[in-house]
Amino acid sequence: MVAGTHGNERNAPWLLDHWTRNSGGLASCGLDLELVVGNPAAHAQNRRYLERDLNRCFAPALLADPSLAGPDLQRARELVARHGPEADARCLVALDLHSTTSAMGNSLVIYGRRPADLALAAGLQARLGLPIYLHEADSAQTGFLVERWPCGLVIEVGPVPQGVINAQICRQTQLAVEAALAVLAAAQAGDLRLPPQLLVHRHLCSLDLPRRLDGSPAACLHPALQHRDWWPLQPGDPVFTGPGGETIGYVPPPGLECQPVWPVFVNEAAYGEKGIALSLTCRESWPVSAEWQQALTDLASQLAHRGAPL
Amino acid sequence: MVAGTHGNERNAPWLLDHWTRNSGGLASCGLDLELVVGNPAAHAQNRRYLERDLNRCFAPALLADPSLAGPDLQRARELVARHGPEADARCLVALDLHSTTSAMGNSLVIYGRRPADLALAAGLQARLGLPIYLHEADSAQTGFLVERWPCGLVIEVGPVPQGVINAQICRQTQLAVEAALAVLAAAQAGDLRLPPQLLVHRHLCSLDLPRRLDGSPAACLHPALQHRDWWPLQPGDPVFTGPGGETIGYVPPPGLECQPVWPVFVNEAAYGEKGIALSLTCRESWPVSAEWQQALTDLASQLAHRGAPL
Repeated sequence: MVAGTHGNERNAPWLLDHWTRNSGGLASCGLDLELVVGNPAAHAQNRRYLERDLNRCFAPALLADPSLAGPDLQRARELVARHGPEADARCLVALDLHSTTSAMGNSLVIYGRRPADLALAAGLQARLGLPIYLHEADSAQTGFLVERWPCGLVIEVGPVPQGVINAQICRQTQLAVEAALAVLAAAQAGDLRLPPQLLVHRHLCSLDLPRRLDGSPAACLHPALQHRDWWPLQPGDPVFTGPGGETIGYVPPPGLECQPVWPVFVNEAAYGEKGIALSLTCRESWPVSAEWQQALTDLASQLAHRGAPL
Repeated sequence: MVAGTHGNERNAPWLLDHWTRNSGGLASCGLDLELVVGNPAAHAQNRRYLERDLNRCFAPALLADPSLAGPDLQRARELVARHGPEADARCLVALDLHSTTSAMGNSLVIYGRRPADLALAAGLQARLGLPIYLHEADSAQTGFLVERWPCGLVIEVGPVPQGVINAQICRQTQLAVEAALAVLAAAQAGDLRLPPQLLVHRHLCSLDLPRRLDGSPAACLHPALQHRDWWPLQPGDPVFTGPGGETIGYVPPPGLECQPVWPVFVNEAAYGEKGIALSLTCRESWPVSAEWQQALTDLASQLAHRGAPL
C-alpha cells in the first residue's frame, strides 16, 4: 500500500500515518501489509515531486538506465528493490492511493489489461460500484508504479485541492482500500465471487487546451464541463471557453469512433504541465472472464497471512 | 492591479494576460491602470513563492533591512520602487487579486481600518454584496502588499485548487475588479455614494489543528465545517475530527466574547504551514462615516485618467 506517491496529495498519507500508529485503524482482513510513503522527500516539501514525476518513473528502461539519476528515480529504484516481486520482503499486489483536483469521486485506475488487475477491479466494482478508468495505449504517459508489481491499481479520489486534507476524501479512500483488501482476502480463501460484467472507461486520447503560437493557453476549460468527469460528452458540447467568453465545442478527433465520449481527469491541476486538460474514454461493458478470476486466485494464494483467521 | 502575488493562484494572472492582450477586456471606467504580475518567478514555477511568502514581505522593517535578501523580498522592494507612492509611475490604489482553496466565494480582505479602504470596501459591498474580512491585530501575519499603498484591498475568490484555472472563479474575480474600478471612478468624479452601514467580519484569532507533542497533526478539519466559511459557529459545534472519527467541538478561546464566531479561510491549503486551520471573526455592522467617503474622494481626485470620459 503506497500513499504519497505524489507529495502534495495529503489525504492517503494522513490515513497511512493513522494506520501505522493504530493497528486497529484499518480492516486488513488478515492480510500482511507493507505501508509505504511513496515519495517522502516530496511529501516533506508538499510538492508533487522533486525533479521527475515518481509515478512516471517505473518504466523498465528508466529504472535500468545507469546514466539517469535524480531523487525521484532513485526512490523508484529503491521501492522496487525493497518491495518488488524479487525483493526479500516482496509484495505481490500494489495499491497506490491518489487524490485529484478533478471530480473523479471514488474511482479506480488500471493500466492495461492484466487479468489479475481486471479481477481485482471487478471485485471492487461489485462491492462499491466504483467507476474504472482503463489507461492504455498512451505512449505519452508511461511508467506507472503499479505496473512493476504482478497486480495493482490506483485508488483515485477527488475533488480535493493539492495540499488539503479533507475528511470526506479520507473516508472514501479508506472505504475503497478496505474493499480491495476484502477482495484479495476472498481470493486468497478461494472464495472470490465476481460480477458477470465489468464496466470500464477505456482511454481514447487526451485533449490539451487550445494554444497560441507561443504556446500560451488561448482558452480555459468551459464551466459547463468543470466537475463533469464520468458524464457523456457529445459533439458540439462545450469544452473550452476563451477569455472573452466564447465557447469552443467538442469536435471528435479524426478516427475516433466512440460516441459519446466520457471525460475523466477534467482540469486536474497537475496535468497542465503534461498538456492534458482532460482525457476522453469510451464506456464499455465487458464480460468478466474465468481467466481473470483464476489469475487473481492464483496470485492471492501466494499472499502472506498475518496469522489472524479471516 | 496585481495578479499572481502567489504563483500557484492562476486565475487572476489568466485574466491579466487577457486584459493585457485585449484592451477591451476590462471595463476600466477610464482609470489609468498598471497591470502587474506580482511574483513572476513563482508564477513560472507554479509555486506560492520561492523562499518567502511575497504577501508577507511588505513590512517596512523587512523592506528596509539591508541584511535580508532573497528573490521574493527583492521582488517586494522592486514593486514598491516601481509602483509605490514615491515612484515616478506611482500608483495610489492597490487591488491585489487572490484565490483560495477555501469556500470564501467572492470576497474582500482589508487590513486595518484605513478610511479610504473602508470606503472602497463599502462601495463594493453596496454594489455586489461581497462579504468583508477585516484582518487586524494579528502579530503573526503582517507585511501584506496592499498596506504599502495609500489605499488597497484584496479580492479573494474560492474555492479553487492551487494550480487550477476555473472559468467561474475568473468571472467572479472580473466582476469584483470592475465594481472596484467603478467605485474609484465614482469617487474621482465626486459622485461616490456609500451605503449607511458596512458589514465586516473582524479578525479575532486563528485556530491551528490539534497537534501531538512531536508537532504532527492529531486531527483534521471536521467535514461539517468544510466549505462553511461565513457561517456561524457556536460553542460545541464540530471543528476537528480525529483519524478514528471522534469529534472535537468548538470551545471559545479564553477571553473571546464574540458569540457566535464566523470562520473564514477554512482549510486553506497554503495556511497549513502557517499553523492556521481556520480564522475566527466577529460579524459587526458599522455605520459608514463621512470621513471615509472624504478620504477616498480626496485620494481618487489624484488618480490619473486615461483620457476617456467616464
